[in-house]
Amino acid sequence: MWITNIYDMHSTLSVMKLSQGVEWTLHCSVLLSDLPKGAVLPRKALADHYGLPDAYLAKHLQSLVRAGLLLATPGPRGGFALARSPEKITVLDVVEAVEGSAAPFVCQEIRQHGSGALTADQCVRMCAVNRVMLGAHESWRRHLRATTLQDIADGIPASIRQRNAAKFSRERAA
Amino acid sequence: MWITNIYDMHSTLSVMKLSQGVEWTLHCSVLLSDLPKGAVLPRKALADHYGLPDAYLAKHLQSLVRAGLLLATPGPRGGFALARSPEKITVLDVVEAVEGSAAPFVCQEIRQHGSGALTADQCVRMCAVNRVMLGAHESWRRHLRATTLQDIADGIPASIRQRNAAKFSRERAA
Repeated sequence: MWITNIYDMHSTLSVMKLSQGVEWTLHCSVLLSDLPKGAVLPRKALADHYGLPDAYLAKHLQSLVRAGLLLATPGPRGGFALARSPEKITVLDVVEAVEGSAAPFVCQEIRQHGSGALTADQCVRMCAVNRVMLGAHESWRRHLRATTLQDIADGIPASIRQRNAAKFSRERAA
Repeated sequence: MWITNIYDMHSTLSVMKLSQGVEWTLHCSVLLSDLPKGAVLPRKALADHYGLPDAYLAKHLQSLVRAGLLLATPGPRGGFALARSPEKITVLDVVEAVEGSAAPFVCQEIRQHGSGALTADQCVRMCAVNRVMLGAHESWRRHLRATTLQDIADGIPASIRQRNAAKFSRERAA
């Protein structure tokens, strides 16, 4: 049973939810932050590392390529690398590459409808409801913009980062 | 055409989006903030005022009743009123009554999966990706918690508030 009627469908859509692609691409991007200069990681290596569905991860990585965050090198020795240094890519950059930058609250200007409709003259200022909702979205964006991939990578213990480097170097040699 | 395959469905669900019920219930609650003590507004009056679908608005108003934000009085002279004073109801209260309080980012702990899986010992601290996403959600909530229904009502010009009061008083007398 998926959708029984239009109300149920709306209820399903209404829950504010981020795609799993956000988690996947953030982790993959942090992993790419630690690659030696000039190195790439094939998509399969990224998918295997986190046990992710390869074809579906591909779609999300392509979103990051389109947003100018990743470079994709084709061919048997090809793979992905960050398009700029990890201290210049924020968490917000990655999240919005996957999710888009539309605010979750969409004002329908209901104050201009119905028996209580205000005139256009009375609605020159932005609706206060819209203003507070947009302000909250900007607070959310500001928080995500304040952390870079480098910040996250720096929080990972050196032993794990060294283990990953050794693992990928082995995989490249294989 | 609704859903063609599982990937399309996921894409549809993945866009972070708030229900229209958020806008509807915020505007209705602000309207109720201005009611004289002891007065109520019938659901139909609220729906008519903003040109909203009555049956669907009912569902959202019930969510606010369940959350303890509105009181519903049954009967032909019944209707809705705020359950407490408007300076004690925040925008966040209303938003979460409609949407729930679940964070939009759900960490699947992918660092513990796949060929790069970390051990439970290595994952005692919360994942840095999860930490920044939860922090952003808290910034969003903090912003919505900082504004009350009274704050929004106070921003509406006196002429509009007086017009609404006169309109509802006429409707009650009719």
